[in-house]
Amino acid sequence: MALPHLTEARAPLTREVETVNEHGERATTSIPAERPLTVYVDKRELVTLMTLGARPEWLVLGYLRNQRLVTSIEEVESITVDWDVGSAAVKTREGIARIEERTAQRVVTTGCGQGSMFGGLMDEVDAISLPAARITQAQLYGLLGAIRAQESTYKSAGSVHGCALFRGAQMLLFVEDVGRHNAIDTIAGWMWLQEPQEPAGDKVFYTTGRLTSEMIIKSAQMGVPIVVSRSGITQMGLDIAQQLGLCAIGRATNRHFLCFTGSERLQLQPELAARPLTAP
Amino acid sequence: MALPHLTEARAPLTREVETVNEHGERATTSIPAERPLTVYVDKRELVTLMTLGARPEWLVLGYLRNQRLVTSIEEVESITVDWDVGSAAVKTREGIARIEERTAQRVVTTGCGQGSMFGGLMDEVDAISLPAARITQAQLYGLLGAIRAQESTYKSAGSVHGCALFRGAQMLLFVEDVGRHNAIDTIAGWMWLQEPQEPAGDKVFYTTGRLTSEMIIKSAQMGVPIVVSRSGITQMGLDIAQQLGLCAIGRATNRHFLCFTGSERLQLQPELAARPLTAP
Repeated sequence: MALPHLTEARAPLTREVETVNEHGERATTSIPAERPLTVYVDKRELVTLMTLGARPEWLVLGYLRNQRLVTSIEEVESITVDWDVGSAAVKTREGIARIEERTAQRVVTTGCGQGSMFGGLMDEVDAISLPAARITQAQLYGLLGAIRAQESTYKSAGSVHGCALFRGAQMLLFVEDVGRHNAIDTIAGWMWLQEPQEPAGDKVFYTTGRLTSEMIIKSAQMGVPIVVSRSGITQMGLDIAQQLGLCAIGRATNRHFLCFTGSERLQLQPELAARPLTAP
Repeated sequence: MALPHLTEARAPLTREVETVNEHGERATTSIPAERPLTVYVDKRELVTLMTLGARPEWLVLGYLRNQRLVTSIEEVESITVDWDVGSAAVKTREGIARIEERTAQRVVTTGCGQGSMFGGLMDEVDAISLPAARITQAQLYGLLGAIRAQESTYKSAGSVHGCALFRGAQMLLFVEDVGRHNAIDTIAGWMWLQEPQEPAGDKVFYTTGRLTSEMIIKSAQMGVPIVVSRSGITQMGLDIAQQLGLCAIGRATNRHFLCFTGSERLQLQPELAARPLTAP
C-alpha cells in the first residue's frame, strides 16, 4: 500500500505569558499555542483549522478522512505543512471528485474545534456496522490509570482537550489540541497510517471532552465501537450511539464511570470498584 | 425602532436516561437535550445549529449578528421557530445582500459549538474600538458569587456551557447551551433586543468555556470590553484580546483569578482576596 509522504513540521506547544492574580501578584503562566493551519487540496483552499499544532500532518489526513473527502489513504500523495506560512498543502493522486459540491453544505455542531461538518455525514451513519468488541472493567481502569499518568500540555498549560486510542488497557496514541475534534481527527489520520496492522475493531477511544453527536459519529466512522469520556454525553450523542450499538461510557475518572449505552460491550467487575487506585 | 417579531418556542432542556455505574447499579441520570435547528433566511437554508434549545429565537438573531450577516436588528422582520420540524424561519425586510458570497469562506475554529465562522471576521477586528470600562475586584467577586448561586442545567445534567452578561456585579442574563458559541450568540441576540436601553459598554461577559480567539472576537463584536472565564485562554485568544485592549480574566472561581491582559481595566482590591466566601 502506498502511504502518503508527510512532512514532520514542529512548533512550540505552549507559551509563557505574564498574568496578575487576585493578590495583585505578577506571575508567568503557560498557555497552549493556537495557530491557524490553512489546508489546500491540490492548490485549492479548503479550510482553516485552528490547532495546537502537535501533529499537523496527521490532523489534516484525519480531517480529510472524517469529512469523507478522501475515502482511501492511497488517494493522498503527500501532505506538506509549513508553519512559517501556516499552510498544509495536500497533493492527491487523482484529485477529489465534486469537492465544491461536497463541501457546500454546512452543519454547525456542538463539537469543540471542528464545529463544521460537511453535509451527508448523518446519511452515512445508518450504513455503519461496528465490529463485536468488548471491554472489561479491569481494562477500563487500566485505561484511566494510563490517562492519569500521561504527561500533557493540559497539565502544564490547561485549555486543551485530550484524546487517546487504546487497545484494551494499552495506550497506542495520546493527542491534545485546543479543539478536541482536531485531536480525534489526528487520531483518525494516525490510524489510517497504521492500518491494516492496527485494525480499529479492538480499539477503545478516550476523550476528555463531551460525547456529542459529532464525536460519536467520528468514532463510529473510524470503526471504533467503544468510547470513554471524562465528561458526559448529550442527547444526540446518546441517540446515535444507541442507533449504532456503540458502547458509550462517560464520567469516567478514577474508579467511577457511567455506561450510557451499549453496556453489553462492557464486562462489569464490580469487585474492582472498591480497590484503591494504584499510583501511576 | 422596529424590533423583529419572535416566536417563543420552548422544548424540554433535559432528559432522563438509564445508566449503569461501576458497581453494576442501574440509575437514572439527567442529560442535556441537543436538537438540530435549521436556519432558513428568506426561505434559503443557511445553517443547521445543534442546540440545547432554551432560547432559539435569540440564538438565531445573535448568530446572524455575530456572523455579520445582519448589521442592524431592523433588517430582521421575524424569526419563527418550530421545534416540530426543527426549523427557524428568518424573514428579513429587504433580504441579505450577497449572502451566497458572504457565507462561502469557511474557518473552523477551536470554539465549542459554533465552530464555523464565516470569513472576514478577522479583517474586522482591527476596526473595533472598545469603550473605556473597568471592573473592580469587588464587582468580579460579586459576579462569581452570582454564577455560583445560579440554578442551571449544568448542575442537573452537566455537559453544557454557560454564558452570562453582567452590569458590574448584576447578572442581566444567563444562558446555557451544548455549544458555548450558541450561548454567546444567544446573549448577542438578546443584547440587540435591549439596545439602546442597555448599551454594551458597561457590560461584562462571563463564560464557563475557554477564551479562544472566537470568543474574544465575538465579545468585542458585541462591544463588551471585559470577559471573565472559569477556564483559561488560548494563544490566539490572548493575542487578539491584547490587540483589542480587551480585559481577559481567566481561571476565575471563588476568590482566585488570573488577569491575562487588559489589567488596566481591572481595579485590584487584594485585601478582598482573603475574605471568606459568602454563601449564595
